[in-house]
Amino acid sequence: MTFSISPDNKKFKIPDEKMTLKEISNIKYLCALNRKKGKKIVVVQGLGFVGAINSAVIADTQVDNEIPYFVIGVDLPTKNSYWKIPIINRGESPVEAEDPEVKLIFHRAVHQKNNLHATWVSQAHTEADIILIDINLDVEKIELGKAVNSRVKINQFKEAITDIGGRMRPDALLIIETTVPPGTIEKIVAPIISEKFRERKIDLEANPPLIAHSYERVMPGKEYIKSIKQIRRTYSALNEKASEEARKFLSNIIDVKNYPLWRLPNTTASEIAKVMENSYRAMNIAFIYEWTLLAEDLNVNLFEVVDSIKVRKGTHDNMMYPGFGVGGYCLPKDPLLAEWASREIFKREKHLNFSVQAVDINDLMPLHTFELLMRGMNNILKGKKVAILGASYRKDVDDTRNSPSIVFYDEVLKNGGKPAIHDPYVKVILQREDIVVDQDLDRTLKLAEAVVLVINHGIYLSSAAQKIASNAKKNACIVDAFNILSDQDIKSLKEKGFLILGVGKGHINNL
Amino acid sequence: MTFSISPDNKKFKIPDEKMTLKEISNIKYLCALNRKKGKKIVVVQGLGFVGAINSAVIADTQVDNEIPYFVIGVDLPTKNSYWKIPIINRGESPVEAEDPEVKLIFHRAVHQKNNLHATWVSQAHTEADIILIDINLDVEKIELGKAVNSRVKINQFKEAITDIGGRMRPDALLIIETTVPPGTIEKIVAPIISEKFRERKIDLEANPPLIAHSYERVMPGKEYIKSIKQIRRTYSALNEKASEEARKFLSNIIDVKNYPLWRLPNTTASEIAKVMENSYRAMNIAFIYEWTLLAEDLNVNLFEVVDSIKVRKGTHDNMMYPGFGVGGYCLPKDPLLAEWASREIFKREKHLNFSVQAVDINDLMPLHTFELLMRGMNNILKGKKVAILGASYRKDVDDTRNSPSIVFYDEVLKNGGKPAIHDPYVKVILQREDIVVDQDLDRTLKLAEAVVLVINHGIYLSSAAQKIASNAKKNACIVDAFNILSDQDIKSLKEKGFLILGVGKGHINNL
Repeated sequence: MTFSISPDNKKFKIPDEKMTLKEISNIKYLCALNRKKGKKIVVVQGLGFVGAINSAVIADTQVDNEIPYFVIGVDLPTKNSYWKIPIINRGESPVEAEDPEVKLIFHRAVHQKNNLHATWVSQAHTEADIILIDINLDVEKIELGKAVNSRVKINQFKEAITDIGGRMRPDALLIIETTVPPGTIEKIVAPIISEKFRERKIDLEANPPLIAHSYERVMPGKEYIKSIKQIRRTYSALNEKASEEARKFLSNIIDVKNYPLWRLPNTTASEIAKVMENSYRAMNIAFIYEWTLLAEDLNVNLFEVVDSIKVRKGTHDNMMYPGFGVGGYCLPKDPLLAEWASREIFKREKHLNFSVQAVDINDLMPLHTFELLMRGMNNILKGKKVAILGASYRKDVDDTRNSPSIVFYDEVLKNGGKPAIHDPYVKVILQREDIVVDQDLDRTLKLAEAVVLVINHGIYLSSAAQKIASNAKKNACIVDAFNILSDQDIKSLKEKGFLILGVGKGHINNL
Repeated sequence: MTFSISPDNKKFKIPDEKMTLKEISNIKYLCALNRKKGKKIVVVQGLGFVGAINSAVIADTQVDNEIPYFVIGVDLPTKNSYWKIPIINRGESPVEAEDPEVKLIFHRAVHQKNNLHATWVSQAHTEADIILIDINLDVEKIELGKAVNSRVKINQFKEAITDIGGRMRPDALLIIETTVPPGTIEKIVAPIISEKFRERKIDLEANPPLIAHSYERVMPGKEYIKSIKQIRRTYSALNEKASEEARKFLSNIIDVKNYPLWRLPNTTASEIAKVMENSYRAMNIAFIYEWTLLAEDLNVNLFEVVDSIKVRKGTHDNMMYPGFGVGGYCLPKDPLLAEWASREIFKREKHLNFSVQAVDINDLMPLHTFELLMRGMNNILKGKKVAILGASYRKDVDDTRNSPSIVFYDEVLKNGGKPAIHDPYVKVILQREDIVVDQDLDRTLKLAEAVVLVINHGIYLSSAAQKIASNAKKNACIVDAFNILSDQDIKSLKEKGFLILGVGKGHINNL
């Protein structure tokens, strides 16, 4: 018997065949019941950071006092994924979020409206009027700084689509929200679905597959729900009917009065839009990197310089600041999806060098903070306690996906140091259960010989300087990798005998 | 006897020694006269796109009904520069500008207020209370696409500073507005001025040189004057006194109530700010380039895609469009100034690779349009008339500095084609007088076998399609390198038998 374990360490028994058979009848019953009430059945495949919240938002949707969609969230009955299903069915959110609305919306959708059910059975696809694909399409990096050699896990994605193609109703609408390599819908998804339809003797003339692409701009954090409902949404489809159906669906979910939909003429265009949008962001961050190094060598505070430039509204106000590195699900991989599509789908010989290079630069950024640490420690790390403040990659959230903290942690270990990592939001780093994240800041800092501040969580901004002063070893080396310490903090810590370095903060030398 | 020739082909005799002696007395007289009226003497060194307009703006300045500054504009008595001096003294502008205010301000400053005089004599520096450096600091590129090998003409700049250091009053304020490699003021300008002061037996303790840095954000075009007076301005200085003097001066010239000054703590910081600001822009353009090629190969209209992304205000709304290339004085060279400073002033081994690479990508962009042309012409250009619509690098201005049109023109020539170039604003391309720019669009297009649209001047947007149809050869190849032709235009031209390609416009294949 196997279990699935949630981030807060609760164990859930993975269902056996008997439970699965029972669940199939349950799904049939629920769908019949809700169909009678005039609702359409929406299946959300994949209950991660996007799909889980999406399923609750759709289930919570009312249009003119009617509830248009009954929602079934589907994920796999595996060790890593299954736990989300019972959690959602309890009316709880499987993702921790600052946004207080997240808790409320799951409670409302499950308990008050009886309109959201999570399951692991594929029967759901057979019942669906609309299937939303929110599964991951991961990129596996083989070597840090060699992003071009990464593996795009297209096969897992293809398998999921094949499975759905074998079950979905011919008139169901399939909406791909997963970020995919440009060309995927025309060159991969559509051929798979058509092939499965042919196998199922479905007349493709009468039933051309209804496939649309619409990418989300979800951002976990304080405005999680808003980042689904109140944000501009781009969509496209393979044919007019699918486009019209997608438009109707999205118009019910999104506040299109204030955030009108944007239709692009084909799915390849909107697939490009998504990865280009994130590549732009990745490149803007990479750009800052080399100027960060310059500023440090020239004793200049680059934060101040960037602030002075950002006053140019409309052209420069999105300039990024120096920092510790880039994490999250999108920026570290989306440029690689474009490069992969270019090479593998379209057999181009030209490369997206600039965008791929941005990924490498960003991936290697935490090593610069490590360099500063080594400089501060006179290259001796063996046996030294290094307190790392921050496991998540984003201010005040628990998200550790591709967090640069992990790269840094490993580098400290590799060099013989003893990393101790603190984060008030993070209980466990998925896929890296070996890293113990402490929630006790005093304990993490206690007698540390080096302290590295890597993310601007509110608690660090307000109290890190004082906590370091009272807990860390005298003369400890402090590296501020995210502009957390004010000049006043730095002066006062220097006076107490600490050695301080900072990413992009060359002026520290003169303080 | 030598002459200086203005862009509209007027000849001016370069002054001889006798005239120079007379002019020296004249300057002394003018300064004494204006000093009596309570004005300070401001010398603007360099009467180019920045200095000329600056001198008129300062001369036109009134504070509480007082005129605080009498302005002397200084440039060299050389073939390329001298003509500006008599033109300004006539009350005319040496730069063509869309902004109607430009004409008025020169007329007002010279004729109504008697407050602006242009000269070639260095005596002006001796008289000045404030010296503004608006000379060029050029970068000479040795080979296209190898920007890292460029020559920074620092010696010319050093000579000008040395000259001024030998003449300026010890208490005069020197403001560097020229874009310089970071570190220039601390490591080059200050040592030169101090050395000259020592030679002149000036007590450096009592008279520490008053040197400030303040970079302009001038943009020729419709809001030329506004881009000096109503724009945020960053400044810094070597010492508190210079800083305070610079603040006072800039506060009189700039609308600081609505556009407050931004003081950075040292000149290296503000020098970095200037080149970083422009490097950011250069990089944002370079980024689009590889996506442009991708979109073309995937039959996608990248303009539409970019529009759909730009709705993300604050993070993506400054995304650039595909285009023909990058021109102007700043973007093609400013990243190179940073790289040069890093290497030559600070002896760093790290490079600003990403920013330098952006320059190369942008410099090579017009060659992509050339590739499209060659594809459309089946690689045969020999003897074919190629009409190039646009010589300037910017919409509706006459500015041809580093215009990519020149690169393209040369490439057509090199391949045996017969380029004919049209621009309604450009009469002559400075430094490339061999290129004849026609102002007659019909004549340029007449019997052309290829037409390349390279800049979005209003006249092209409104009438290029129709003019091409009625003048160019049937079946001519048209390359739209700046999204000038609408889809309607393209369809209609295609129907008439023209072959059309477009930069970033992959969808043309399906029209």
